Parts: sequence; structure tokens; C-alpha cells
Amino acid sequence: MISVKEAEHIILNSSQNFGVEEVPFLKAVGRILKEEIVADRDFPPFNRVSMDGIAIDFTTFRNGKKSFKIEGIQPAGSEQISMQNKENCIEVMTGAVLPDNTNTVIRYEDVTIKNGIATITVDAIKKNQNVHPKGKDGKVGDVLITANKVISAAEIGVLATVGKSNVKVAKLPKVIIISTGDELVGVEEIPLEHQIRRSNVFTLVSLLEKLHIPSKTAHITDNKSVLKTKIENYLQTYDVLLFSGAVSKGKFDFLPGVFEELGVEKLFHKVTQRPGKPFWFGSATSLNTDEKEEHQKENSNKTIVFGFPGNPISTFVNCLAYFYPWYSKSVGIETKEETAILTENVTFKPNLTYFLQVKLSDKFGHLLATPITGNGSGDLASLVHADAFIKLPATQTAFKKGENYPVIRYR
Amino acid sequence: MISVKEAEHIILNSSQNFGVEEVPFLKAVGRILKEEIVADRDFPPFNRVSMDGIAIDFTTFRNGKKSFKIEGIQPAGSEQISMQNKENCIEVMTGAVLPDNTNTVIRYEDVTIKNGIATITVDAIKKNQNVHPKGKDGKVGDVLITANKVISAAEIGVLATVGKSNVKVAKLPKVIIISTGDELVGVEEIPLEHQIRRSNVFTLVSLLEKLHIPSKTAHITDNKSVLKTKIENYLQTYDVLLFSGAVSKGKFDFLPGVFEELGVEKLFHKVTQRPGKPFWFGSATSLNTDEKEEHQKENSNKTIVFGFPGNPISTFVNCLAYFYPWYSKSVGIETKEETAILTENVTFKPNLTYFLQVKLSDKFGHLLATPITGNGSGDLASLVHADAFIKLPATQTAFKKGENYPVIRYR
Repeated sequence: MISVKEAEHIILNSSQNFGVEEVPFLKAVGRILKEEIVADRDFPPFNRVSMDGIAIDFTTFRNGKKSFKIEGIQPAGSEQISMQNKENCIEVMTGAVLPDNTNTVIRYEDVTIKNGIATITVDAIKKNQNVHPKGKDGKVGDVLITANKVISAAEIGVLATVGKSNVKVAKLPKVIIISTGDELVGVEEIPLEHQIRRSNVFTLVSLLEKLHIPSKTAHITDNKSVLKTKIENYLQTYDVLLFSGAVSKGKFDFLPGVFEELGVEKLFHKVTQRPGKPFWFGSATSLNTDEKEEHQKENSNKTIVFGFPGNPISTFVNCLAYFYPWYSKSVGIETKEETAILTENVTFKPNLTYFLQVKLSDKFGHLLATPITGNGSGDLASLVHADAFIKLPATQTAFKKGENYPVIRYR
Repeated sequence: MISVKEAEHIILNSSQNFGVEEVPFLKAVGRILKEEIVADRDFPPFNRVSMDGIAIDFTTFRNGKKSFKIEGIQPAGSEQISMQNKENCIEVMTGAVLPDNTNTVIRYEDVTIKNGIATITVDAIKKNQNVHPKGKDGKVGDVLITANKVISAAEIGVLATVGKSNVKVAKLPKVIIISTGDELVGVEEIPLEHQIRRSNVFTLVSLLEKLHIPSKTAHITDNKSVLKTKIENYLQTYDVLLFSGAVSKGKFDFLPGVFEELGVEKLFHKVTQRPGKPFWFGSATSLNTDEKEEHQKENSNKTIVFGFPGNPISTFVNCLAYFYPWYSKSVGIETKEETAILTENVTFKPNLTYFLQVKLSDKFGHLLATPITGNGSGDLASLVHADAFIKLPATQTAFKKGENYPVIRYR
């Protein structure tokens, strides 16, 4: 039995690099950027008009002139024109190139136009106003986005702007999620009295979907030789195996034994936490590279095995507390720990880290965590009323209202 | 020109009900639940063993007996067996039905087994321990999830458990995102000196994708008759038109005029905010129901038109500040305002609501907002360095370090 901290340490040390692939930029949302994004030209690429109005030469205005003959028009998307007479003005549109021989834009709101003459109706004009100068936001060659960043809508805009129609992102691990347990039947089936429907594999699929990782699912009956044959195959085919169930002390908890027989190295079994204690974690070196190729496992990494306990809340919290950080480390992103403030006293006597479901709320910039009392690790429905787990350390038994602790959100 | 508050009010009053559709439960993540999810049986459906070990009759233990002959085994997924002799015990596995004539489970850790006899090695045994009683988490008919909730992994687990292989969710509006502006070229093109690549439509696609709303995109040149023909068609086909650009005072900002000619009712134009001021908002009643049907617009709602200003940050913030709440209201979910604490003094003199980019961080349960200084509404790259907008009210000019204001996250 090891501590949560030791378990985290071992799991982060088992992170893997799955390489890089190129995807169309619009498919890259939620993926991890694996190249620097560099400005292909200055931003803006020209002295850009930032208000609709007229462009003038400021010196003429400073010398006392208020009315300007409109010499021409410069729409957005047209080649730069040149003002022939510095006493005149050019009508300019937002997004247009500032016309040559002009340097200052006065917005339409501050101008009256009559018979082709624009008259400025305000006094406060500054030289270069309403012009977004070439290169102000970035010079050609500047790094606009560093690598190892989660791509969001903001990054999509920049990728489009610099013409990155395809972009390099971290490859995703190939994951299979496997349930065991003869009490489980399919979602569409009517369970007998002693049966229940499968649910953990689907919560895991959804938790991985949140990270934009697609996954396969499988169910194996509690039969040791069937388990062994199937798992041997999965170890050759996938980068990650996520199990739910069959890792505790039960007579039919065959997984630890099967893993040992298949040469999966046990890195730990059991963590001092509640829920989720019987968590089994290990890694396997694939033996047969030919077979690997045949099964299209594309990298030469080890296969990582997360054996989550079968209770719904145990599986759920362990995926968040261990798989999520393992994935972040593997693809090279830094995650920040978030903390929240308890709104009630909590007492927890066992010498275990306590992952307690909480409802989060916000008050004056404070993140508040209100404990949701469920009926133990089997009570899946209680997750519906919470948003996150608060992580209360094993070293304490009393946790006071107003104290802050780390939280892991799942919404 | 109206205030942000008035604009929000008008937009929320223009929310629409797009109806309900049934989807496979695993495709429902991020969608809005539109039915109550009810327990189809008690949870747990039987007195459920929650630890691997032995099941006994507690009275026998209380009467002084410590060693029990193992009479049988009750695996998970098997029909309930019955203990014949109350002096004996049954080996039981997590998830199994508690055998008849037993009521208390002692985990393997607290038992030694030798020659078919299990001897309890601890004194502290409580009646009914390690048994999760039938119906403890919920009774048949109980509402496990109320309608109008965003479906996350937690809800997916419950849906699976109660056998909801298909689930009713809010239908999504049909959305098209339209860019205008002759200065814009495609992402794969090399722009001429006076051109830039399209980016706003793609940031909008990504922002909608975050809400699980698919969208179409189009680009229309700055030609009034082309705009009119195309938009007339889109009004018949889509529930929502999102525009970027052509709503300000420029000579080629044809949209307000085109909307008027097409009978789109202007609900407001221009909001006292920066960035994003020239925002145009309206709605249109489709004239020709036959044509609507032909174009597969499935509801009889009005078409909603969001005319966002074309500057990248303006489009971005207005989608978050207006389209997001409109969608939430339309599909029936309540959203909570989040607030964050400024880490620096900010001064903003214009009598406008100021949407300022901030980087969020967490310290002892406090959400901190650090302003990111960009180069105005054209500086898309500055969004990469921030996580959210803080909304500073028009009624103040000085915003002090330590004060809290609403924030809108985009990561």
C-alpha cells in the first residue's frame, strides 16, 4: 500500500511520448500543439485603418485646416492608393490599408460631409490616431503560440491568420476500456435480480472524450483463461488499458494474477485513499514487434495498465486523479492545481486521503466547495449532484470550514 | 446605442425553443437533458456486498462464535444462495447479492481461513457492516437526474445504469457563420499585401463546438445584391445567422441595410461596450413556410441574426457575452455568473462596459484575474495569452486591485 503522493509520482514517471501527427487546423481543438506558431508576416501586415472615416495628413490639420476635399476612397481589400494632394482627404474603411501620404484617421462620427467636402467637427485629434501600425502586434518570425499548449478557439484564430491549414499536434494514445464482472449486463438489457447494467466503461469513455481521446470498450467475463487470452492481445494492440473491477481481494478478482502471468510489471497495488483504494497500476513491454505492427500499435512504448477498482465512484475519481495527469504529462502540458474553500467542517478519521464529492460555487471571486453526502463508493447517482472532488490529505482528520484544499473538477 | 444590460435583456427575450430529439446516450455528452431520469429499480437492486470476505449472521458472532465453517460461495452475478446453517458462513464477493440468512460481511483482511474454517481476527464488528442495503441510494421511481442539465460523464453513468440507451435532449439550432469583407482570403491562400486571411469564422466555429453545436460557414463578398440574395436564402434555412463584419459605418458595411430590406427586425444596433460596440442584433420571421420546409429548417421559430463587428476580439467577446447566454436560455439551462479578483488596478475612462482580457490563476481558493494588455480589438494573438474576459462596468472608471468582477472564460 502506498500513499497518493507516491502513486502520483510513479504514474507521472510512467508517462510516454506518443509522437506527433499533423491534422487539419479546424480538427485541432482540444489537441496539444506540438510546434511553434510563427508569424508569416507582420501583424498587421500594413498600416491598418481601424475606424471608418477619413484619412488626412496630420500636419495639414495642425496648420489649421478643418475642411478637406474628398479625393478618393480606400476600401478594405483594395490595393493601397496614394493621396495626391496633402490638403485633401481619402475616405477609408476599417481593415483597409492606410493610403499613402496620410497618417491620421478621423472617424465618421467626428466629421460632416457635404458636397464632397469633409469637415472635422472636433478639436481633439491626435497624430496617427485610428491607425493600427504595421507590425504592432507582431513582426514576421515572431512566435505567436509556443508549443505544448491546448488548442482553443483563440489559437484556432491565430492558426487561420498565419495560414496553418494543417498543424502538428500530439498523437493520442490508443486506449481500450475493459469491464469485468459477471454481474454486468448491457445497457439495453433487462437485468435479472442479481445483475446490474454496465456503466463504468461509459463514464470512462466520457471522461476520456473530455480530453478529446477516443477509446474502444470491451467486456470480459470472470474467467481466468479468457481474460488472459484477450488481455494478451490488447497489450499488443493498445497503448493504454483501463480496467474497471477485479483488482481487489475477491475470489474472481483475477486481474492481478493474469497481469503477472502476462509479464505486466506491477508498479503498485493499493493506495491509501478512499474511495479507490485497490487501484492496480503497471506497465508491460510488448514482446513481439511483428505482432505489434500487425495490430497497428504505432509506437515502441510500453503498454500502461490502469486497473481501477470496480465501484463507480472509485473508477471515476481514479480516472480523474491518475489517468488525467498521466495524459497531461505524456503530451507535454502543464496543469495547474486548483483549490477551493470548504463551506462546512468535515471529519474523516481513517488514515487515508479522502476524495470527497463537492458542489462548487463562486462568491466574490472565492471558489466554494460544499460537500455532497453520498452513500459510499457505489452511489453513482450522487455524482450528478456534485461538480468536483476535493482532496483532503491523509495527515489530518479534521478539515475546517474556510480552509482550502485541491479540487478536481469533472464538469 | 444601448447598454450591455439592455442588450443582454433583449437577447434573452429572443431565446427560442428548438424542441427535443432522442440520441444514443453515449452521443449525449455536452447536450442538454430534456427528460427526467427515473430509477427503473431500487439502487442497489439487492442487498449488495461491498467488500470481499465472508457473510455471517451477526447474532451468532454476538453470541461468542469466532470461527465459521465455509458453507458456500456467492460470486457477483450469481443468483442469491441461502445459508443453511446460521453457525456457518458464506464467502462473498464485492457486487454480489448478500446470501439469505446472513446480514453482516467481514472483509478478508480481518479473517484467517484454514481447512475450510474462517476465523475472525478482529473484535469490532458491526451488524450489517459492508452491506449496501437494497434501495439505499434510490427507490424505484425516484428521480435520479432532473431535466435541463448539461450531460457529463456522471450523468452518462446513471443513464447506463437505468438502461436509457437513448435519451431525450434539446435539439440544436441550425447555425451558419458568415464572414464578409473583400480583404479576406482563405486560410490556404497567400494573401496579397492588402489582404488578410479569414479567421473569425473559424474562431466562431470553435466557440460553438465548445457548446457541442455544429455549424456551417460561408463567405460573401462586399456586394449588396449578392449579400441580399444569399442572406435571404440563409434566413429560410437556418435558425441562427452569425455574421462577422460589415455592421459599422463603412461605405461597404451593407449588412444593416440588407437586413432592413429583407424584413429582419432590428432589435438593437450598437452597445456601449469596448470592444464590440457596433454589434447588430435582430430577428426575422420566415415568410414562406413551403420554402422553409424545402430547406429543412425544422421549427417555426424566427431566425435570429447576430451581426458581430469584424475585429477579431470584438467577434470573440460578443459570441461569449451574447450568443452563449442566448443558447443557454434557449435550451433551458441556468448558468451561474463567475467572478474573479483583479490583481492590478485598471483605469478605463470611456463611458463603456470594458471587456478586458485576463489570465486566470488560483491562490488559496481565490480566483485571480491578471489583465493582459493587447493592442486593441485587432490583436487576435493577445487572446492566446489570456483565458477569459473580465467585465468592468461602464459606471466606474477606476477598478482597484482586490475588487471582484464577473469573468467569462473561454478555455
